[in-house]
Formats: sequence, structure tokens, C-alpha cells
Amino acid sequence: MLVTLVDIQVKGEFVKKFIEATRDNYKKSVREPGNLRFDFLQDEADPCHFFLYEAYESEEAAANHKNTDHYRLWKERVEEYMKNPRKGTKTRVIEPVELHNWK
Amino acid sequence: MLVTLVDIQVKGEFVKKFIEATRDNYKKSVREPGNLRFDFLQDEADPCHFFLYEAYESEEAAANHKNTDHYRLWKERVEEYMKNPRKGTKTRVIEPVELHNWK
Repeated sequence: MLVTLVDIQVKGEFVKKFIEATRDNYKKSVREPGNLRFDFLQDEADPCHFFLYEAYESEEAAANHKNTDHYRLWKERVEEYMKNPRKGTKTRVIEPVELHNWK
Repeated sequence: MLVTLVDIQVKGEFVKKFIEATRDNYKKSVREPGNLRFDFLQDEADPCHFFLYEAYESEEAAANHKNTDHYRLWKERVEEYMKNPRKGTKTRVIEPVELHNWK
């Protein structure tokens, strides 16, 4: 299991469009084989600041996400909306160690 | 629903002890009423860098976490292990919007 944390700053005028595009991506991403979570969060203190919490069963499943049409489309759509390049941090899961606790 | 993302830098010599203390906190936190997730992650690129992903059903449930004995004990134990003060970011959940998708 692995989790990628994505930190995204969005231009104020594009917040609504960014949420719309990312909701579309969310809906399709959670249906990918090997996807465990794809949570979409907004910073309470800064409505232009978002996080994606992308959990996958394996490196392979996480890598496959980047080859999907919905990911490619999202990437293209949000390019204009972002204030600066998004920052992804790949992490290994310490807890929960058991896969059934992720489902 | 709300999620607090906690970003923690640990001193190299205390990584093992930090993991042990945080595992203890994890085990008890996931049993709290209103807790949805308490994921414990380690940055792949920096083994001294950790995240906690604390999801709760309500503000009240999240606030109650800070009054538990296991949280207080964890806070005390890890004080010495941290390189600098941990950084918590409170977020609101955009997706998944439905509670049953968190369980």
C-alpha cells in the first residue's frame, strides 16, 4: 500500500472550476482497480488550498492511475487553474498495516 | 466530516521510538467514537518525515480526541522526538461527501 499526498494551490477565480474538474477525476479514480481512497480536501484556513489523498494497493496500481484518460483530462483542465505546480509526496503506510482496514 | 493533516519532522535518532509511540496512539484513536480514519504515513524520500491523516465525523469528535488519555500520552512522549513543532492543517471534506464511503 502507498499513499500520495498532493498539495495544490489554486487561483481564486478558478476555485469553482477546479472543484468541478477534481470531482470528475475523483468519481473515476475511486473505480480504478487497486484504488483504496481518493479523498479531496479543502484547507479550512485557505479556500484556494486543496489536498488529494490518493491511496493504492500497489506501486503498479498507483502508476496506472497516471495512464488513465480521466487523469490526463484532469491534468489538462487544471493546468490553467493552479497558482503554481502541485506538489506530490509519496509515502509508505505504517498504519493501518492490514489491507482490509483500507476497504 | 473533517480531516486534520499533521506534518511531523522527527530527529533521526528517535525515528523508531516515534513510530512506536504513534502506533500506540493509532490503535486507540481508531476506536474513538466518530473516528473515521487515523492513517500513519512515512515520506518515501525522507524517513524522518511523517504524516497523520485524522478523519472524524464531526468537529466535536475531532475535539474530543485531544481530551483522550492516549492523545495526551502521545503528545508528551513525542515532544522530545520531534525536530520542530508539528504542523496541523484542518480541512473540510469535498469528496467523498457521503459518510458510508468513509466506513
